[in-house]
Amino acid sequence: MNVLLLVFCFVASVQWAPSEAVPFVIPWYGRWIVPTVGEVWPKPQQQTSSETFFVLRPTMFQFQVVGERCDIIDEAVRRYYQIIFYPGEAGRSPLSYPPPPTPIQEHPQFRAFLDAVEIDLKQPCEYLPSADMLESYNIKIDTPDNPLKATITSDSVWGILRGMETLSQLVYSSAATGVAYQMNATEITDFPRFSYRGFMMDTARHYMPLKTIKKMTDLLAQNKMNVLHWHLTDDASFPYESTLFPNISRYGSFQPFSHIYTANDVREVIEYARLRGIRVIPEFDSPDHTQSWGLGQPRLLTECYDDNGILKVPDEYGAIMPTREENYVFLQQFFGEIFNTFPDPYVHMGGDEVSYYCWQRHPEIKAFMAANGWGEDYTKLEQYYFDRLTAATQEITQNQMRYIVWQELLDLNITLPTGTVVEVWKGDYEGLSFNEELARVTKYGYQTILASPWYLNYISYGLDWEKYYLAEPLDFDGSEAQKNLVIGGEATMWSEYVDSVSVIPRTWPRACTVAERLWSDRSVNDTALAALRLEEHRCRLLRRGFMVDPSNGVNFCEQEWDM
Amino acid sequence: MNVLLLVFCFVASVQWAPSEAVPFVIPWYGRWIVPTVGEVWPKPQQQTSSETFFVLRPTMFQFQVVGERCDIIDEAVRRYYQIIFYPGEAGRSPLSYPPPPTPIQEHPQFRAFLDAVEIDLKQPCEYLPSADMLESYNIKIDTPDNPLKATITSDSVWGILRGMETLSQLVYSSAATGVAYQMNATEITDFPRFSYRGFMMDTARHYMPLKTIKKMTDLLAQNKMNVLHWHLTDDASFPYESTLFPNISRYGSFQPFSHIYTANDVREVIEYARLRGIRVIPEFDSPDHTQSWGLGQPRLLTECYDDNGILKVPDEYGAIMPTREENYVFLQQFFGEIFNTFPDPYVHMGGDEVSYYCWQRHPEIKAFMAANGWGEDYTKLEQYYFDRLTAATQEITQNQMRYIVWQELLDLNITLPTGTVVEVWKGDYEGLSFNEELARVTKYGYQTILASPWYLNYISYGLDWEKYYLAEPLDFDGSEAQKNLVIGGEATMWSEYVDSVSVIPRTWPRACTVAERLWSDRSVNDTALAALRLEEHRCRLLRRGFMVDPSNGVNFCEQEWDM
Repeated sequence: MNVLLLVFCFVASVQWAPSEAVPFVIPWYGRWIVPTVGEVWPKPQQQTSSETFFVLRPTMFQFQVVGERCDIIDEAVRRYYQIIFYPGEAGRSPLSYPPPPTPIQEHPQFRAFLDAVEIDLKQPCEYLPSADMLESYNIKIDTPDNPLKATITSDSVWGILRGMETLSQLVYSSAATGVAYQMNATEITDFPRFSYRGFMMDTARHYMPLKTIKKMTDLLAQNKMNVLHWHLTDDASFPYESTLFPNISRYGSFQPFSHIYTANDVREVIEYARLRGIRVIPEFDSPDHTQSWGLGQPRLLTECYDDNGILKVPDEYGAIMPTREENYVFLQQFFGEIFNTFPDPYVHMGGDEVSYYCWQRHPEIKAFMAANGWGEDYTKLEQYYFDRLTAATQEITQNQMRYIVWQELLDLNITLPTGTVVEVWKGDYEGLSFNEELARVTKYGYQTILASPWYLNYISYGLDWEKYYLAEPLDFDGSEAQKNLVIGGEATMWSEYVDSVSVIPRTWPRACTVAERLWSDRSVNDTALAALRLEEHRCRLLRRGFMVDPSNGVNFCEQEWDM
Repeated sequence: MNVLLLVFCFVASVQWAPSEAVPFVIPWYGRWIVPTVGEVWPKPQQQTSSETFFVLRPTMFQFQVVGERCDIIDEAVRRYYQIIFYPGEAGRSPLSYPPPPTPIQEHPQFRAFLDAVEIDLKQPCEYLPSADMLESYNIKIDTPDNPLKATITSDSVWGILRGMETLSQLVYSSAATGVAYQMNATEITDFPRFSYRGFMMDTARHYMPLKTIKKMTDLLAQNKMNVLHWHLTDDASFPYESTLFPNISRYGSFQPFSHIYTANDVREVIEYARLRGIRVIPEFDSPDHTQSWGLGQPRLLTECYDDNGILKVPDEYGAIMPTREENYVFLQQFFGEIFNTFPDPYVHMGGDEVSYYCWQRHPEIKAFMAANGWGEDYTKLEQYYFDRLTAATQEITQNQMRYIVWQELLDLNITLPTGTVVEVWKGDYEGLSFNEELARVTKYGYQTILASPWYLNYISYGLDWEKYYLAEPLDFDGSEAQKNLVIGGEATMWSEYVDSVSVIPRTWPRACTVAERLWSDRSVNDTALAALRLEEHRCRLLRRGFMVDPSNGVNFCEQEWDM
């Protein structure tokens, strides 16, 4: 039914808007930026284009799976048909243009109707996206070796997904021809610059409903990002409902029936992300940032004493108590469950901002420190905690679990298992620049991801995306080996001041800039050119039903948000 | 059907959240603020309350109109029934609590079921809200002179509306009793501190669909604000479709079919606002900020010459050409139409930021200045423009039109008709404090409204509502007579960087603070106490279906935004 509606709209008689026809360049008048038409975000590595165009007819169009196939392909075929021809979830009206004065077939650049795009996967599907997944793909639309045809080719199902996203962005509505769905002849060879292109979502400071997480996941996919780093818990709340330890969320969530993620919720998120080629990496930050764990897991946290050795008010606790053996039993079982629940071998273990205040004053810990001859060096105790934690989790996962940690552990000279990934988040706000932080951290030989310049929660007035766009992960002073350790980065959205009401417009389109920095060639760094494409991409995402903020100041989209 | 659903939800068996029961006070753990329950925003002038409560039953409840009635009352009865018992527009589930262990009738504070609230309007309805409208009201719920009854009384239909809003906020869901809708015995005497409590919406830098404007209007009503100042046009676009001069929006809007306000749209907004006791004051800013007028109204703007007397590129224009007689004919007809379209006698005429650059270089203007002996004093030419504009509009409106202008006209010593209201917007961002601006402007003897401290478009990270809350309009150094001239103020949301995607969460709940400053007693200025009520009010507005941002950092609402 919807498809029919779309077709009828072709004949709606609407006249030209002069403001459409005139490119405004005077910044104080009209819109400030004229968007591109049919450009791809993030920018592909190589693209040659032609003015020759094809017309897509919704009632005729299909994706033809000519290579390997699996559920990921089948779902993508359905999804991208919808995204191209029927974007938006609330049934808002499609673009409507006046009928062309002459049949479109007589347009000098018209090449043909394009009723099929071939999906040619050369190798069998992988089931799960991973740190090593291939994402390269090719698109040929009416190339000399593929005349009058459109084909997406990849050796990997993940490359097919990235290619289908690109293809969907090549389709545009043209005011010049009056065609609602057209696409130019083009050839694209594309691959990501970095393998880890993530976004961190914080569901502890504010609870985010599943719908929000899914929309966020869609937006990641439509910007070719591939990791959802799920900061599930923190001091404020513990919304993850553990099967083995349900009391933690029962007492540590904001509300234990409505403000939690059940095992089924988690599965739903993981499956939603898997079908879009996105890894879900949970974070269970410890030993600090764990206040919410303590209510439902007695004796986990360090009871806090004051300087006179008096136990503080009963409710005051510090980080996880590192000298209590039973805690490692708990942690082993808990992280064993996490490893079985989240299929990605990587788990973010946190490790940031550990306060030693309560550790330093607890009699058991003081005795333990003395027995080990560690004096006042509590970094040794933190090393001990992470040694025990990694040993316990390696044991229960048969050495399969891999770790991501915040950079502090390296700052404190703590040794971590080989294969651990370190996330750099300091710099810019912390004295050193993030380049200095990167130079320092990569010296240790761990793989590294960068978050420092992309703390999107810190908002400011006006046009602010350029600074995110220009942040370059490989600009630091370091050897080639050090630079090879940087596998990517991620945008973060800490949720102290944002919840499901505006987490999406606060994140997007600013996170688009991170996506392009991590996918496209390093040389793609002209903000004036990017602005034109970002403007198109923003209106595209809006049309697809996502609340994406205006990025470039005074402007409009043909279809505004109207819900 | 919906009502039945609500009733069934009473018996849903849900157990208590410990996080509900424990008031958290430790800022780094759990939620940072515990909201009040059943408190009113903005705070009434006088309220005495009791712990005795009544229970409201959705299937039994009704408003009984015992005094005067009219369409405003009838619509409000329907609306507030919905707001109280079925908030939210997407049919999200009502609050559900476990059934009380014993019948609620046995609760020591239970007083009775309350199946009716009397609406007692003592004087006939006015049709239109106005600058002089009365908004005071009384509420008596089980007072000694009104036992076991609830009554809202006012001499004015506007007071009844304000009282019904208050009543709707007195209804709360109680985790303690398991009752979804209860209300305490109370007595309220309430009236606004200032008569002008406005919000300025800018539909020129970004187009705002009607749905957005209506939601904004609802939010104004639910915060007892009473003016929608509609900044309809600016350099960037002219979305108002004039009946007499349709070419202006045809060529000066972003898109002349989708991005305009038709006569019917404007009527719809005005009617929607009227039923909620809100005045709609349009702004047609001139003589500058008018670039978008020029495309469809040739010869209106001043052609711009450079220093050598050479006409600049054809597209460059300055403010409205003040020496061209035909322009006053146009302005008279145009504002005559505006006066007939918008029922409020007040029209905001703008007058801010007039650039003399093009005036100073136009040969006709130079000759006109010389002929009048004005030398280089272009403020005389601006005075001339406003003299002609006000004379023309007074003539065509039989002296009925009243004006609001931005403060610059006074800064330039321009004389304006008696009865003009001056809006102070400088200060804080402009060198002088807004108190100094207020002191200066009120000396001229015009009524004054304050906007300077409430430019909500300037966002910043973190908790930022307190500065808006604490801005006090009567703190300036001035005589009693000067202070009496301050009739109120307004929050503004200039839309360079916001459109319908996030204009609501960016405005609210920050505009709530302006609403309380302008309604409640001056002594209501404790931010710590306000935070608790604001937290409740934020969740209330969220539950009612409005995208209102979290205001106080880490927290949750029982019903999160989930759309």
